[in-house]
Amino acid sequence: MAHPTATAASPHQAAPDPGAVFDWLDREAALRARAGLTRTLRSRPSDDPVLDLASNDYLGLVRHPRVTRAAAEAALRWGGGATGSRLVTGTTELHTELERELADFCGAEAALVLSSGYAANLAALTALTGAGSLIVSDAYNHASLIDGCRLSRAEVRPVPHRDPGAVAAALAGHDGGRALVVTDSLFSVDGDAAPLPELSAVCREYGAALLVDDAHGLGVLGPGGTGGPAACGLAGAPDTVVTVTLSKSLGSQGGAVLGPRRVIRHLTETARTFIFDTGLAPAAAGAALGALRLLREEPQRAGRAREVARQLSGRLGAAGLLTAVPDAAVVSVRAPSPEAAVAWAADCRAAGVAVGCFRPPSVPDGQSRLRLTARGDLTEEQIAFAVEVISRTAPENARG
Amino acid sequence: MAHPTATAASPHQAAPDPGAVFDWLDREAALRARAGLTRTLRSRPSDDPVLDLASNDYLGLVRHPRVTRAAAEAALRWGGGATGSRLVTGTTELHTELERELADFCGAEAALVLSSGYAANLAALTALTGAGSLIVSDAYNHASLIDGCRLSRAEVRPVPHRDPGAVAAALAGHDGGRALVVTDSLFSVDGDAAPLPELSAVCREYGAALLVDDAHGLGVLGPGGTGGPAACGLAGAPDTVVTVTLSKSLGSQGGAVLGPRRVIRHLTETARTFIFDTGLAPAAAGAALGALRLLREEPQRAGRAREVARQLSGRLGAAGLLTAVPDAAVVSVRAPSPEAAVAWAADCRAAGVAVGCFRPPSVPDGQSRLRLTARGDLTEEQIAFAVEVISRTAPENARG
Ligand SMILES: Cc1ncc(COP(=O)(O)O)c(C=O)c1O
Ligand SMILES: Cc1ncc(COP(=O)(O)O)c(C=O)c1O
Repeated sequence: MAHPTATAASPHQAAPDPGAVFDWLDREAALRARAGLTRTLRSRPSDDPVLDLASNDYLGLVRHPRVTRAAAEAALRWGGGATGSRLVTGTTELHTELERELADFCGAEAALVLSSGYAANLAALTALTGAGSLIVSDAYNHASLIDGCRLSRAEVRPVPHRDPGAVAAALAGHDGGRALVVTDSLFSVDGDAAPLPELSAVCREYGAALLVDDAHGLGVLGPGGTGGPAACGLAGAPDTVVTVTLSKSLGSQGGAVLGPRRVIRHLTETARTFIFDTGLAPAAAGAALGALRLLREEPQRAGRAREVARQLSGRLGAAGLLTAVPDAAVVSVRAPSPEAAVAWAADCRAAGVAVGCFRPPSVPDGQSRLRLTARGDLTEEQIAFAVEVISRTAPENARG
Repeated sequence: MAHPTATAASPHQAAPDPGAVFDWLDREAALRARAGLTRTLRSRPSDDPVLDLASNDYLGLVRHPRVTRAAAEAALRWGGGATGSRLVTGTTELHTELERELADFCGAEAALVLSSGYAANLAALTALTGAGSLIVSDAYNHASLIDGCRLSRAEVRPVPHRDPGAVAAALAGHDGGRALVVTDSLFSVDGDAAPLPELSAVCREYGAALLVDDAHGLGVLGPGGTGGPAACGLAGAPDTVVTVTLSKSLGSQGGAVLGPRRVIRHLTETARTFIFDTGLAPAAAGAALGALRLLREEPQRAGRAREVARQLSGRLGAAGLLTAVPDAAVVSVRAPSPEAAVAWAADCRAAGVAVGCFRPPSVPDGQSRLRLTARGDLTEEQIAFAVEVISRTAPENARG
């Protein structure tokens, strides 16, 4: 069929404005602005003086000299990037070493490193399920798990938050095809843990596999930070697959899937976000390996992060603020409204403390909150300063 | 409802083997093995003596001292990772600098850097379409574009490879909701270019937006390597969005979306693989920025990669092998069968030349091939050696 060539759209003709195809973006931006949901990027300097309680650097390792030196050395030795898919040229001996040590640390048979935790979750969900399978998914699961469910073509049954009974009911109603139960181990906004032993028992009763996203558990939960599954005896279980990220406790970038050797082989050969993605940059693999080795030598770092969390939460609670006892290193503090949460976080920052701020649609209506990272390297003085600032700037009606 | 606790599955009971939930993986592995489709990882040393024609390091920058030093310095200065989502703590001044220089280099209004090219494609497709929109997608598009289509909830209409007429027909049949045409600029397996001017004209005729994945064009196509869209006057077009990866010509890791400022703002505020993903590691941002600056100073690197491709293809063709004239820096050589392709690639490697090898399901049946990367830094001697090895090891019936 006939169609115009590029010159037909030249400005000399009275063509309509081609940019009009994106006018709807301005209308949506105006709607977001009206709802108070505009988000902007804040560019931080390398010597930011603000006390950081907003990152996911749970162990305070991201700028540890051994971690940054390991990153730098890997870049100088191996190059700026992996150069290709892990299946072609993108697997270096450094990747293999990281996979071996990560599996060993977490007590898994094998590990596969991907370019992000997001990619790891997409890989695990799509490769282990498919049309005809059932996925039972906690309602509060991370966005990357939800996207993995959508990509998988499986039937997805969301269940209420932390509810093994609802999981059992969903599995009982299934017709017998493959089934996978998926959950965060530690939920990143509220800081509460999944009931992994109960979920594993339900999975075994109904013949389902269990996928645990341990992004916020690795480095914090379990003996020496070996993770949420290790904390409850599920490390190395033959029916359990664990995903982790290298971007939080390990102070780097990247993700990994850990599990039985046959699961890892299957992902290596079939997972699209592994096969069709460039391998993790050597510097990131090096940083993660450096952090892992440090954590091995200093296993008390994990317990210290949990202890800082309990202190922060206890003292903020004593000041009348609404916090739950944290299960790991995330402390959540209830705010009376989305607007109040935003203003509170801004006041904290102005006073020298960076905190996270969650409001709808990231959390359900009425559950806006501050999110604090209880970094294991915080000093007693820093903890006291944070508590003082957060309670002093609290909105009138934030107290329970 | 009642459900057993973890101890109910203890080995003291005669519970069935919980690992049986993954028995199907062994059956699938056996099927792949029988079909000759087993894939394994090869771990390379840092001093691999093999001549690399298999990576995507088009400009030979991945181990350039300026690139690796930029990576190392960024890690030492900024840390091993970005520490959080770009919207929370994950945007450093380095990310902002990279975005500004990348947009400037490619002639776009703005840029947004993500943790991979894969994530950039998922972000662009999901944020710019949705239920009720139409996506028209070239049948040979990259896996990350296909996954983005699946995640988007839009109606997806695949069209034959490089066929603007089919695109026009698909758009003409659409009911008037939003429409997006999506294509690789340079197809990564065959090395052929998309008809971007014609696709843009069709988009304008029907009021659709155009999304171009320039992963294999950036650094190779266009004046000084400014990319496929720049090569045909589409840089900065108000209805065109471009995705790139930092992991090929720029020798690093990461991806970016380039486009009108309002598109970038929209992605910043709404794209799930941007919002819910940790920011790109500083070392990767630094390496990409180092490579970009080098390419600015030495714009002839782009033309040299294209010239090496023409030489490789011309000499292999003169030796009787089936290659098409390459549009950029990928040279595709037809193999008579999947088995022959695998054996041929293995023989090349044994003789000291690493080449890519594609077979079904990565390519259609009957189109197995070797894929050669025409690195711009190859010397005359290396080119001659590669041609000698590839033609000497060619299977009997590889000659046309
Ligand atoms: C629970 C959870 N899973 C997965 C991810 C994704 O990991 P990454 O940032 O390494 O892609 C995140 C956060 O980023 C997360 O919070
Ligand atoms: C055409 C194309 N788009 C996107 C990607 C994904 O980029 P990245 O590897 O940076 O995730 C690739 C290859 O990896 C590609 O070939």
